[in-house]
Amino acid sequence: MKLLRAGTAGAERPALLDADGTLRDLSGLVPDIDGPLLADDAALDRIRVAAAAGGLPVLDADGLRVGPPVARVGKVVCIGLNYHDHAAETGAEPPAEPVVFLKAADTVVGPDDTVLVPRGSRKTDWEVELAVVIGRTARRVETDEEALAHVAGYAVANDVSERAFQTEHGGTWDKGKNCETFCPLGPWLVTADEVPDPQALALRLWVNGELMQDGSTADQIFPVAEVVRYVSRFMTLYPGDVISTGTPAGVALGRPEPKPYLRAGDVVELEIEGLGRQRQVLKDA
Amino acid sequence: MKLLRAGTAGAERPALLDADGTLRDLSGLVPDIDGPLLADDAALDRIRVAAAAGGLPVLDADGLRVGPPVARVGKVVCIGLNYHDHAAETGAEPPAEPVVFLKAADTVVGPDDTVLVPRGSRKTDWEVELAVVIGRTARRVETDEEALAHVAGYAVANDVSERAFQTEHGGTWDKGKNCETFCPLGPWLVTADEVPDPQALALRLWVNGELMQDGSTADQIFPVAEVVRYVSRFMTLYPGDVISTGTPAGVALGRPEPKPYLRAGDVVELEIEGLGRQRQVLKDA
Repeated sequence: MKLLRAGTAGAERPALLDADGTLRDLSGLVPDIDGPLLADDAALDRIRVAAAAGGLPVLDADGLRVGPPVARVGKVVCIGLNYHDHAAETGAEPPAEPVVFLKAADTVVGPDDTVLVPRGSRKTDWEVELAVVIGRTARRVETDEEALAHVAGYAVANDVSERAFQTEHGGTWDKGKNCETFCPLGPWLVTADEVPDPQALALRLWVNGELMQDGSTADQIFPVAEVVRYVSRFMTLYPGDVISTGTPAGVALGRPEPKPYLRAGDVVELEIEGLGRQRQVLKDA
Repeated sequence: MKLLRAGTAGAERPALLDADGTLRDLSGLVPDIDGPLLADDAALDRIRVAAAAGGLPVLDADGLRVGPPVARVGKVVCIGLNYHDHAAETGAEPPAEPVVFLKAADTVVGPDDTVLVPRGSRKTDWEVELAVVIGRTARRVETDEEALAHVAGYAVANDVSERAFQTEHGGTWDKGKNCETFCPLGPWLVTADEVPDPQALALRLWVNGELMQDGSTADQIFPVAEVVRYVSRFMTLYPGDVISTGTPAGVALGRPEPKPYLRAGDVVELEIEGLGRQRQVLKDA
């Protein structure tokens, strides 16, 4: 299933994009798409049954904002340098263990929302990423199979990053990863049963129509199952948490000077095979 | 005012510890102590007036759990190496700019809750810290005075840290900062009007009765106002967000071998002048 949240901004309703591409209103069936829902197999099954029976009301898409597919995202755990070609373009060695950092959940916005270039930014950059949405509480998960059983579904994320804030002010990367609007997520959450192999998905990103990233999750250094296992050794993952699993080569940082960092007016579009497409217009904060 | 949340575990009510040390039930007056309340001066004034009038019902403290003083903490922004003596004991140079990292809000527990020693941990450590609770949305705050006007109040935090997870697995510190139960917060939120000088507070921490940390916020490299200003350049701070402003010397990491890292059964107690006292018993996860 493709689950999403759409409606007037700030009052999005839970919705389903059905097999025919029609938006269906789920608000009569479930309160929202959030951690408790993702942990509730019976509720997800009720949606499946209702969708198959064809009884769900159509949601008129005209003028609707598509919000992040998960209301009240828990934490956003990000994996850095998780593609060989991206590690190489940044001049880093491939890491021996997954590089983990956090983005605050308040940076999450809808897939087509405005992205703000922070005041004083000279190096705002893009990163198309496969986001994993957790559906069951995961503590010290041991096998790959068990790890994938904790995944509710997958979505597209843009791990927007300010490179000067990230690496030129000391300490960790967090200063460049947590600016307002820096985590577009969506448009949909595709349930895990419809993503048979998360390591065989094409990812692409364009800036002003020019293809900038063109990768595959096949090139991840640490695949999704290993990432979930690894992270669950150090922190507990809860339903509604998101793991953004890293970006392939092609970011502005990895390009020759003058590096094409983002400015107000630029348009970023990104997509992952089967998971939909995002489009953001950049604006000054 | 000393605002807190107390009740049966998972159903804590908003409460006030009044000038006589009596716990007063605020649940008839406000829904909870959270971001919206902290941003609502009129509601905070209603509490002040009701407390002064002596009309608030007593909350029987027997058998109650004290929860974190803020329900639904937003993000927890932590400042690393923010005391000269602590930077020195870890072998680090005093940082030129504040070192910023995040703790997931799901690590926040009450002041007297059990702290779990993670599976596989050999280096679980303590850090008494002054926590700043944000009451107004802060973006690119410019002056110290303006910065302090965004602070709703102050509380005690224990920035529990697993040092091997933090520094021996590559990447950022986050692996050692985000284990379950690693952020005891409370017992109270003391409103900012009752903390005239946040740079003049004694902080102390004991392990099994032995005094381990004995510092003062006067020794902070970056004082509270500067920290709020600095962080607000990189990320937007919202009501209900917490900034934990670093720890003075005396952590296990800074001591001679064999370093006295925490084990199941240990008891950690910590307090900050005027902000109350925490007590945690360690237990294996």
